[in-house]
Amino acid sequence: MEIKNSEAVTNGSKTVMNSDQLLGHWQGHRALTRRVIEAFPEEDLFSYQIGGMRPFSDMVKELLAIAVPGAKGLATNIWEELDEEISLGKSKAEILYHWDQATEDINYWWPQISEERFQEEMLAFGQYKDKGFCTLLYFIDNEIHHRGQGYVYLRSLGVEPPSFWER
Amino acid sequence: MEIKNSEAVTNGSKTVMNSDQLLGHWQGHRALTRRVIEAFPEEDLFSYQIGGMRPFSDMVKELLAIAVPGAKGLATNIWEELDEEISLGKSKAEILYHWDQATEDINYWWPQISEERFQEEMLAFGQYKDKGFCTLLYFIDNEIHHRGQGYVYLRSLGVEPPSFWER
Repeated sequence: MEIKNSEAVTNGSKTVMNSDQLLGHWQGHRALTRRVIEAFPEEDLFSYQIGGMRPFSDMVKELLAIAVPGAKGLATNIWEELDEEISLGKSKAEILYHWDQATEDINYWWPQISEERFQEEMLAFGQYKDKGFCTLLYFIDNEIHHRGQGYVYLRSLGVEPPSFWER
Repeated sequence: MEIKNSEAVTNGSKTVMNSDQLLGHWQGHRALTRRVIEAFPEEDLFSYQIGGMRPFSDMVKELLAIAVPGAKGLATNIWEELDEEISLGKSKAEILYHWDQATEDINYWWPQISEERFQEEMLAFGQYKDKGFCTLLYFIDNEIHHRGQGYVYLRSLGVEPPSFWER
């Protein structure tokens, strides 16, 4: 189908969603990721992998290294270096504990992100240059990406993953 | 960390992004998915699977069944039933052709989505009830989810996938 120029004129001022809706979207995804963590057999969470990729616990570590420092950075513009070497313990229960803490901490920092920040260019974690909304979407998309990989691990282990559409 | 109620008061009117930015975000993801399709060895695209999941070509079929009818539905409120039985041919070249057509078609319908539609409740494909922006994010998230699974297929085949952050 050809693009008709007359109709393809976009109106950049159309608002898509507000910040509360984006928070709800993110926390909905985080609730699903929590169920994926829960679905893993305890040992496989820390050791099972395919194709030389990381175990799912290491992916979760990355997600936790990003989430709260990311929300705080958006709110305050104080960015520390990305530290994926955080200690999450060696049990599913400990990981879930850290996950739930992060849920509260994100809710704490979120309302402190000013409207301007979403459109402002920033250097997230001192190295990733992008606008605020792109930085945030990257956090969320990265979680969906790795969680999708967790789904393959689970299927390959014969475990039925939670439904993608349930948040 | 405890949530302090005084600071946790959110302001729902903060705008996060506009519709042009969301289109750019989606098409950026679609460009990456295109590179993932390209990265598959021809035969594996149609046959390789892990854990009883679908070959990546079938996931791409789902993404194509959603993308243009979805953008059209958002613009016009005319929804047909989701039809994943579309014929994409049996070669990577044909799939990429359909992918590129969809890129143009999405660009065609996008500017016809009115601002109100993003916040309007709708019954996408006659069966999925949600607000417009949620419906759209679902399309995008579903693509990221399945593409993440494609990454595991590629890694397991010994193929280096394209970088997630390159759009």
